[in-house]
Amino acid sequence: MTDTDAEILELFEARSPRGLARAISRAESGRGAALMHRLFARTGRAMTIGLTGPPGVGKSTLCAALVTVARKRGKTVGIVSVDPSSPFSHGAILGDRIRLNEHFTDPEVFIRSMASRGHLGGLAGATGDAVAFMDAFGKDVVIVETVGVGQSEIEIAELADTTLVALQPGSGDSVQLLKAGILEVADVFVVNKADHPMALQLQREIRGMMEMLDFRGRWTPELVATRARENVGIDALWAAIDAHDAYLRASGELVAKRNGAFAHRVRALVLGDIGRRVEARIDALLANGVAHDDPYRAADAIVAPLADVLPQRGDVPRTPVLARPTVKGF
Amino acid sequence: MTDTDAEILELFEARSPRGLARAISRAESGRGAALMHRLFARTGRAMTIGLTGPPGVGKSTLCAALVTVARKRGKTVGIVSVDPSSPFSHGAILGDRIRLNEHFTDPEVFIRSMASRGHLGGLAGATGDAVAFMDAFGKDVVIVETVGVGQSEIEIAELADTTLVALQPGSGDSVQLLKAGILEVADVFVVNKADHPMALQLQREIRGMMEMLDFRGRWTPELVATRARENVGIDALWAAIDAHDAYLRASGELVAKRNGAFAHRVRALVLGDIGRRVEARIDALLANGVAHDDPYRAADAIVAPLADVLPQRGDVPRTPVLARPTVKGF
Repeated sequence: MTDTDAEILELFEARSPRGLARAISRAESGRGAALMHRLFARTGRAMTIGLTGPPGVGKSTLCAALVTVARKRGKTVGIVSVDPSSPFSHGAILGDRIRLNEHFTDPEVFIRSMASRGHLGGLAGATGDAVAFMDAFGKDVVIVETVGVGQSEIEIAELADTTLVALQPGSGDSVQLLKAGILEVADVFVVNKADHPMALQLQREIRGMMEMLDFRGRWTPELVATRARENVGIDALWAAIDAHDAYLRASGELVAKRNGAFAHRVRALVLGDIGRRVEARIDALLANGVAHDDPYRAADAIVAPLADVLPQRGDVPRTPVLARPTVKGF
Repeated sequence: MTDTDAEILELFEARSPRGLARAISRAESGRGAALMHRLFARTGRAMTIGLTGPPGVGKSTLCAALVTVARKRGKTVGIVSVDPSSPFSHGAILGDRIRLNEHFTDPEVFIRSMASRGHLGGLAGATGDAVAFMDAFGKDVVIVETVGVGQSEIEIAELADTTLVALQPGSGDSVQLLKAGILEVADVFVVNKADHPMALQLQREIRGMMEMLDFRGRWTPELVATRARENVGIDALWAAIDAHDAYLRASGELVAKRNGAFAHRVRALVLGDIGRRVEARIDALLANGVAHDDPYRAADAIVAPLADVLPQRGDVPRTPVLARPTVKGF
């Protein structure tokens, strides 16, 4: 533990938001391990909510409205706003984020923007650490908001307890849902801008698609219509989140889900570390002319010596994933 | 080599487009290794072009116009159209793709759409294999078209010889360029829809940003204005691509670039394989209670035994990356 870490830990213990902010910055720069060793035991208390959807659906407005409801119920809140850092996001994300402004002066609301690109392990790396730190800090609710482009809307569902998928009427979103596997990951669908002429049509489409799936023995996604800007439907949305949380706890799925999230984060860390080791080996292979072969043979040459240390799944008897006695966080 | 592979190889040797199509399908399903062993030695002849840009900029129209120019010059063409499979792509991509229709009946133009999600190794995996197969099949030019969302516009530059970044006037694209590191990867900027009132403004912005960088000793990106729908500026664009190709060959950068692309593909294959091995280890760790620790300690427990087999870069003397005598493909 460095002097910097000790200083951050002291601020953290004193419940200073600066301690939390600096802990997250350590994670962003890939130096959060020592702090996580000290703080992880305190995680597992927060309810974590993932919120994803296309640009322009009103995610930040929804997020701000959810924070208002949570605060009314006396809950403290942490928000991680993940910027996909696409070169083509047109600044809309930044503009939307201003809607969270009303909560900036509330000391019990901690807001952090993070770029997903370039960070160690992407969403599962620094973002996961940020959620864990907020949880350890004592936030009751942690919301991770991310634009649904590429992998992030799937990954958020692997990490959060409850995943909200926000959709826009009239945008053709629903058509893409089945194809993209989004139906499988949404715990709650939010049809925002519910006063739009196409809103009922979108709700019908979502229900129609859900009827094609068999939810017996598992959670059936809720569907909530909102007008976040006017705070309409937000209490119903909160009730759906609460219902899913109660289901997770009663069914025992929460433990399995958090074990899965833990495994997801470990995997990202391991692959990040191994990736750096593989670089060195690739350089050596190129220098020694293995590259004259094709990429598959070159890859085999690197992986073959690992067979003893890292057997393939089929090579060892599969051990069941046991639930940990305490449910730890994200 | 399975019977299926032997059959595909026979079609391939007979120069049947069906052989090429089926080889790519094998790669998509993660079973392309045996074919690659046989065909990789024939790669390295094609000129590979990456084309990226935001949705709506007219990439498919640009692509179709480039194909027309290439065909006029007697070149055979392969096109890999990468669909990011975002649930929120609104089907616009599919609609755009229809513009390539004019080339569907040309036997010397081979067009293939691929989803980037879910494929082994993403862009570096099945897409890289598809380009290699097109190259081995004898296509003179292979164009990889991908929507710039998330990582793909950076990754395409790691894989292609020449990277075109298409931008839209009046969209605010240029503002995001520096931040996203796009300036670093573009070999040619294409300002499409050049009759737009903001087109000159965008060109000024791009030039302004380029002036802030030092291109001494390396390629200075070209800037070409086009109206792809009217075939305006496409000859100039082709000339810029040719100029970059000539620069790569004269400077020796082509060898270094292709070595880098080769390493990129090997890395993706190795990490994919190791990822599957890591799953088994994580299951065992969770079952044995290592998960009571934090994710960093759990990751260390997996990586530590690899230290001998995969030393970190710092642990071994760095070997220089030597140019391979023959420049192989993608």
